[in-house]
Amino acid sequence: MSLAIAAGCEPFITSAPDSVGDARRGALACTLDLRHAGRRQVQLRYELAGEPGLPVVLVAGGISADRHVVATETFPQPGWWDAQCDAGRTLDPARRRILAIDWLGSDGLLDVPIDPADQADAIVAVLDALGIETLDAFVGCSYGAMVGLQFAALHAPRLRRLVAISGTHRAHPYASACRALQRRAVALGALQCDERDGLALARQLAILGYRTPQEFDARFGGAQVVGGRVRTDAEDYLDHCAAAYIARTPPTAFLRLSESIDLQALEPESIRVPVTVVAVAEDRLVPVDDAYALFERLVAANGQRRPQLRVLRSLYGHDAFLKETAAIDNVLREALA
Amino acid sequence: MSLAIAAGCEPFITSAPDSVGDARRGALACTLDLRHAGRRQVQLRYELAGEPGLPVVLVAGGISADRHVVATETFPQPGWWDAQCDAGRTLDPARRRILAIDWLGSDGLLDVPIDPADQADAIVAVLDALGIETLDAFVGCSYGAMVGLQFAALHAPRLRRLVAISGTHRAHPYASACRALQRRAVALGALQCDERDGLALARQLAILGYRTPQEFDARFGGAQVVGGRVRTDAEDYLDHCAAAYIARTPPTAFLRLSESIDLQALEPESIRVPVTVVAVAEDRLVPVDDAYALFERLVAANGQRRPQLRVLRSLYGHDAFLKETAAIDNVLREALA
Repeated sequence: MSLAIAAGCEPFITSAPDSVGDARRGALACTLDLRHAGRRQVQLRYELAGEPGLPVVLVAGGISADRHVVATETFPQPGWWDAQCDAGRTLDPARRRILAIDWLGSDGLLDVPIDPADQADAIVAVLDALGIETLDAFVGCSYGAMVGLQFAALHAPRLRRLVAISGTHRAHPYASACRALQRRAVALGALQCDERDGLALARQLAILGYRTPQEFDARFGGAQVVGGRVRTDAEDYLDHCAAAYIARTPPTAFLRLSESIDLQALEPESIRVPVTVVAVAEDRLVPVDDAYALFERLVAANGQRRPQLRVLRSLYGHDAFLKETAAIDNVLREALA
Repeated sequence: MSLAIAAGCEPFITSAPDSVGDARRGALACTLDLRHAGRRQVQLRYELAGEPGLPVVLVAGGISADRHVVATETFPQPGWWDAQCDAGRTLDPARRRILAIDWLGSDGLLDVPIDPADQADAIVAVLDALGIETLDAFVGCSYGAMVGLQFAALHAPRLRRLVAISGTHRAHPYASACRALQRRAVALGALQCDERDGLALARQLAILGYRTPQEFDARFGGAQVVGGRVRTDAEDYLDHCAAAYIARTPPTAFLRLSESIDLQALEPESIRVPVTVVAVAEDRLVPVDDAYALFERLVAANGQRRPQLRVLRSLYGHDAFLKETAAIDNVLREALA
């Protein structure tokens, strides 16, 4: 594959794809005009799974997701959405090429406010570099849905359809307050030169927002007195989740991407691309009411483009996109038909 | 008033009421058998507002409430439930005597696990000291409702009716996990010898559980970039709340009373006193489903005592008992008639 150099992207580094076969990875150096931090040199990393000639779908997950969506022969380690990309599924790489990026800021080196719209610009730079004129679809979940909405608003000619799962046109003020306190946990840890303890606590707090009381009630029991302290039944699980997370996440990456969610602010009326809005009734971070509002505003502004609304039920709340594989596949099959 | 000495309470300190008139306060030294920490000497502090001869109602609030429920001529500083005790209300001290205690552990000196049932025993010791044979009612909110249920289960002959508002027979595993993380925030602060920052964060996290997304959406807007960081709109409010809280709360008191909530574990079938269960549909800490379960189990075991269920709607969620004065008064008027 040849690397076309994007307008706005300087050619001083352009790593060729470092693998060939059923998937390839690459990186490009690029200058982007960030909305809250001015012109910055950044490195953009992407992965593209599936054979040339298939329609290209950009897949974007939450702030902890990365470019490795699906395990392939070339990159066999587990991807974050393997189940959704299984053989026969709508996102099976044998049927569609799956393109994804590492979020701008995910390496912890870009320590500035990052707007979700900046991520959309970064994706365009990658498309330009790869010579991809138009995405067949953008499937975004959580933060990825916010970025997808920005992409649809800013770069409509590059996109045929958006599926926005569990992410909307704004950050809800209550969820923003929750994230602000998660960032304070990191800051509290940093005061003692131990950002890892703070990041662990932040991640545990985040998990509570991703899941539901119903799931915790089904999984966990009552508290016990252990060594003179009360220990609740979910703490082992939360410790396990935090350990896995802090091993792979720079605190700065968490802070800047968490902030980025809170910067989401978009007028749905600016979108001129068909959108499927997917909400989960039990979502505690992205209330289903916000999805209704997004959908109604899309209908009012874009009636002829027939936006779609799907409301799923899930014990897993905001994390449904990682758990409800069959239901999500049904939505994607219809949307991408 | 003479101070009768409770069985189990030793007479080596018994402070006489230190005020007279429309309200009085006192303290007594007492030995209690704590369920998770053995026999301990504790000091119990109470306040009793209203003239002798009126029916006595024990009022108990959340873990941050204290014995000063209502402002009186004798103690004119604001009480935590002044609005609910206004002239003409069911809890008007001109109509009922209002008795309350400082929670066991609230001075930060009792650094051991404290069971809600221990609090019920402490209240009995105070009743014995004051020569009060039977409470006309126990009105408990949040943690106070949990303690009230324990009191009803353990000391039925001392109580005519319980009103349990926004607290049930168990701590919900999800809410327990939230509280465990709040306690970890205090521990994270303590690692740097600054429990105050940790306690501030814990309180802010707690407030998110006490309120609702709907309220935050009505009060707060989007985030801003300030000094290179994203600041969400609710942070000023959360800072204000935390400053007020840490000025009056020893970290140990918070930790041990927060733990105590998670130790709540009671079989509703053991209750042989009429109970009015009051739930708030929007409560994120005490799901209304738990109130239904409590009520149904009371009905099954106590049908002839006619337990009552009231479900309120409130923008304030768990904090409704501090905000929905008229609705709470309606419930209390009927329950205490």
